[in-house]
Amino acid sequence: MPSHAEKNQGSLVIVGLGPGKREYMTARALKAIASAEYVLGHAGYLGPLEPLLTGKNVISSSMGKEVDRAKQAIELARSHAVAIVSGGDAGVYGMASIVLEVLEHSGDLINVEVIPGVTAANAAASRAGSPLSGDFAVISLSDLLTPLEVIEKRLDAFFSVGIPVVLYNPKSRGRPHNFALAVEHARKYLAGTTPVAIVRNALRDDEETIITTLGEIEASVEKIDMHTTVIIGGSESRIWRMGDNVKGIITPRGYHRKYVY
Amino acid sequence: MPSHAEKNQGSLVIVGLGPGKREYMTARALKAIASAEYVLGHAGYLGPLEPLLTGKNVISSSMGKEVDRAKQAIELARSHAVAIVSGGDAGVYGMASIVLEVLEHSGDLINVEVIPGVTAANAAASRAGSPLSGDFAVISLSDLLTPLEVIEKRLDAFFSVGIPVVLYNPKSRGRPHNFALAVEHARKYLAGTTPVAIVRNALRDDEETIITTLGEIEASVEKIDMHTTVIIGGSESRIWRMGDNVKGIITPRGYHRKYVY
Repeated sequence: MPSHAEKNQGSLVIVGLGPGKREYMTARALKAIASAEYVLGHAGYLGPLEPLLTGKNVISSSMGKEVDRAKQAIELARSHAVAIVSGGDAGVYGMASIVLEVLEHSGDLINVEVIPGVTAANAAASRAGSPLSGDFAVISLSDLLTPLEVIEKRLDAFFSVGIPVVLYNPKSRGRPHNFALAVEHARKYLAGTTPVAIVRNALRDDEETIITTLGEIEASVEKIDMHTTVIIGGSESRIWRMGDNVKGIITPRGYHRKYVY
Repeated sequence: MPSHAEKNQGSLVIVGLGPGKREYMTARALKAIASAEYVLGHAGYLGPLEPLLTGKNVISSSMGKEVDRAKQAIELARSHAVAIVSGGDAGVYGMASIVLEVLEHSGDLINVEVIPGVTAANAAASRAGSPLSGDFAVISLSDLLTPLEVIEKRLDAFFSVGIPVVLYNPKSRGRPHNFALAVEHARKYLAGTTPVAIVRNALRDDEETIITTLGEIEASVEKIDMHTTVIIGGSESRIWRMGDNVKGIITPRGYHRKYVY
């Protein structure tokens, strides 16, 4: 009976929540959660969704449990509408890849959709002027899933061509020294005057943005934690001032080569 | 009189609209437009906003007029609430940098805010599985504002470390050959089996996604236009299949090195 089969047909959405507050989620993400019977995610991301979760089956789990969470989501999605949530964009250091990997491995032919969100690079950049206006690179300093020598090689490649670099996971308890290492690599190629933005809790409560330089960054290092995104400017980036106030970083797009203003 | 001064105090928001449809805008972006007296932007981005623009002063201009548009926005923002809109994220090849540059140059102390949006890299990636799960780089192939030799050097740096690379402006009338050049650089470092996603009109009407490989990309080149984002996978990226169907690209996050699933 087709109608019975259809009823048992589940679905899976992998939802990027953006920076955290509901006003920075897309309407599509809100709707996907509203349509779900089950919502799975890291406890820290489910909190701000609370009012949307009434009457739903909510399964929260802790960091480090991503593989188990993916398996559970797929198990449930065989016969239910399931949403698995991820901070920022689900496709950038988020749940999308592990869910799709586990799904492929399972052989289940479940209907799956990835819903994008505002990733930390763009959220942090918006609080620091326009540091990522042109080409840029994104790298995680966590060596939990990527060997440290690979991270170092990539940092060298990025800094050597003078593009702004966004550091995800710049520092955490397990790897306090990787940030100092990244700064060392940056200094091989970039002047001490290169601007750096340290953005903690971008677009969330207790947001804090520090604009400093590569030469003076040690003075702000203790501000960096796992809720921080760091943007190291490129060779063309400069401090943005309004009057006497440092407001952020501008990486000019190149219009100055074509126009007078 | 302070109240008079306050009344004359304008404001400027630089709004990232995301991929184009309203459901992929953030609530914050919608609110910023609702609060504006003047809305400025490229005609192509203002269309989908139409129902939100009733009763507002709408100033649309064409591509290539970014500097004039920025100047006009700042002029108006001296005494009005002004929103200037940008596709995707305003900070990524968008209006943020040029507006802030012109604003700084003008010396006006106008209240300015950048509102982030879902950038094309993340929108396109969400339609192609999870190609950007780990570190990645973003580069525009337009040599209008960046010299071609700089673009080529950056492409080499990115491809040489095996990360996925997102190509903005992969092809347009003025520069049809830059895409072939990028492919040439990619082939110096990456196998012909490296997956490539060609995403046209991501999350808009007439969306089309092609999953191919670096070795076979010539067969799909005529699909690429200025509404297309191309993602060239990294050395660890692979085709994602469900049953016999090619569904997209997965760049594994590295869990396979730590877990069995």
